[in-house]
Amino acid sequence: MLNEEMLDRIVIVLVRARNPNNIGAVARAMHDFGFGRLRVVNEYPVPFEAAKSAVDASEVLARAEIFGSVAEAVADCTLVVGTTAVGERVLQHPLHVLHEASARIEDELGQSEDSEDSITPRIALIFGSEKTGLSNDELSHCNWLLTIPMQEQEDLRHPSMNLGQAVAVCLYELVRNVRGRELRGRSTAPAAASAAEMERLTQFWMQVMEQTGYTRHHPANSDEAQVRRLVLRMGLTATDVPVWMGVLKQVLWKVRAGGE
Amino acid sequence: MLNEEMLDRIVIVLVRARNPNNIGAVARAMHDFGFGRLRVVNEYPVPFEAAKSAVDASEVLARAEIFGSVAEAVADCTLVVGTTAVGERVLQHPLHVLHEASARIEDELGQSEDSEDSITPRIALIFGSEKTGLSNDELSHCNWLLTIPMQEQEDLRHPSMNLGQAVAVCLYELVRNVRGRELRGRSTAPAAASAAEMERLTQFWMQVMEQTGYTRHHPANSDEAQVRRLVLRMGLTATDVPVWMGVLKQVLWKVRAGGE
Repeated sequence: MLNEEMLDRIVIVLVRARNPNNIGAVARAMHDFGFGRLRVVNEYPVPFEAAKSAVDASEVLARAEIFGSVAEAVADCTLVVGTTAVGERVLQHPLHVLHEASARIEDELGQSEDSEDSITPRIALIFGSEKTGLSNDELSHCNWLLTIPMQEQEDLRHPSMNLGQAVAVCLYELVRNVRGRELRGRSTAPAAASAAEMERLTQFWMQVMEQTGYTRHHPANSDEAQVRRLVLRMGLTATDVPVWMGVLKQVLWKVRAGGE
Repeated sequence: MLNEEMLDRIVIVLVRARNPNNIGAVARAMHDFGFGRLRVVNEYPVPFEAAKSAVDASEVLARAEIFGSVAEAVADCTLVVGTTAVGERVLQHPLHVLHEASARIEDELGQSEDSEDSITPRIALIFGSEKTGLSNDELSHCNWLLTIPMQEQEDLRHPSMNLGQAVAVCLYELVRNVRGRELRGRSTAPAAASAAEMERLTQFWMQVMEQTGYTRHHPANSDEAQVRRLVLRMGLTATDVPVWMGVLKQVLWKVRAGGE
């Protein structure tokens, strides 16, 4: 299971990203999912100040590192994973679907955790440019590739995702199991109502049906066992029962007060 | 396991989306993952032609439907799921982490697949505006909520994702298991009631509360959004709704006949 310290050993590398908004969107997704290490490989200066869509991501952008080549950007990494939309390109690398890739990355981090080497293990996840993806030369720096499972295109063009969305989906998958567990621990699902409460509610309903004349008009729906099943199918929570009870008491009072 | 026909029964509803680029990004993510039904709830005309970032998504945008309210947009849906960033807001709904939510949605589609009812089951996944998310009134139309597990913010502000990224992550999770999973056993659970039916039931309950004097005695429990949540928590089946409706009609008739 990935922990915070492990997340800090995952590096997101953007190669030839052209649109500053996309770089901003990537930084925001990193911030949202708890990743902090962004590296950008570009031949020309990166317009970070123009990364406007990066709400909440300024810290990630401030820490971002710029490199002139993929080789330099991944030099300190022990595992380099490329991302690809597959398509007609002939792949020279092992390819894993995202959720399998994520499990492998987790394993790698877990293993190096246990090793006694002094190396700080680090994993690079590389994303290519919006238009062309990663070139064969860039891919050659990767140990293996991952792909996000997408809808087949009818015209067999290789599909490609928006860069910010692709990064968001990959990072979500990496933290999916960790954060899911944390959140679930905190969520407080309401307690179900007890059988005794549901039985009291059933009896109230029987009275309402009886006293409004429903039983006379619809005897087939008024059988006690049938009403009980109907009430049980409501699947109420413990806090809902008193509210329903209060409503029915008021109904009964009103019906009786009205008189025949 | 979700198949193509099932994906077509999932509707993405955007409420008060302000930025056309975000609508475009949502449409693109839908196209990437094989979803086609987009519904937009907005008070003013939606600038679809400005949804520039929607590479490959024009078909989704062309099919998009516009509605004036959440109630109308989800009227034909049997399960309405809201999305939320949690945070400090006090939730009135059951909350599920995305991957659990996805399993529930799969179950719902699988069950209704096997039922013999003539209803076409449909699931709505609702996303709120970029700035404010879904309002309490909008949330009251939801059966339950899902949240994408994210990094805790240091300042405890509730985190929120970019709209296009949030939709991409949710849709990815929905199709994640499509490949390489065995079909699950056939279930014979009855079909769920549609949102339109539940809304009619809510309105009947409002009348009962009003006319029996419950509203006067318990104003705190009689707020429309609160009654709607109470009714949705009943989790009724399509066959139960007419029975409840009949009982309430009889109650109303009796209450009115009794007179003050």
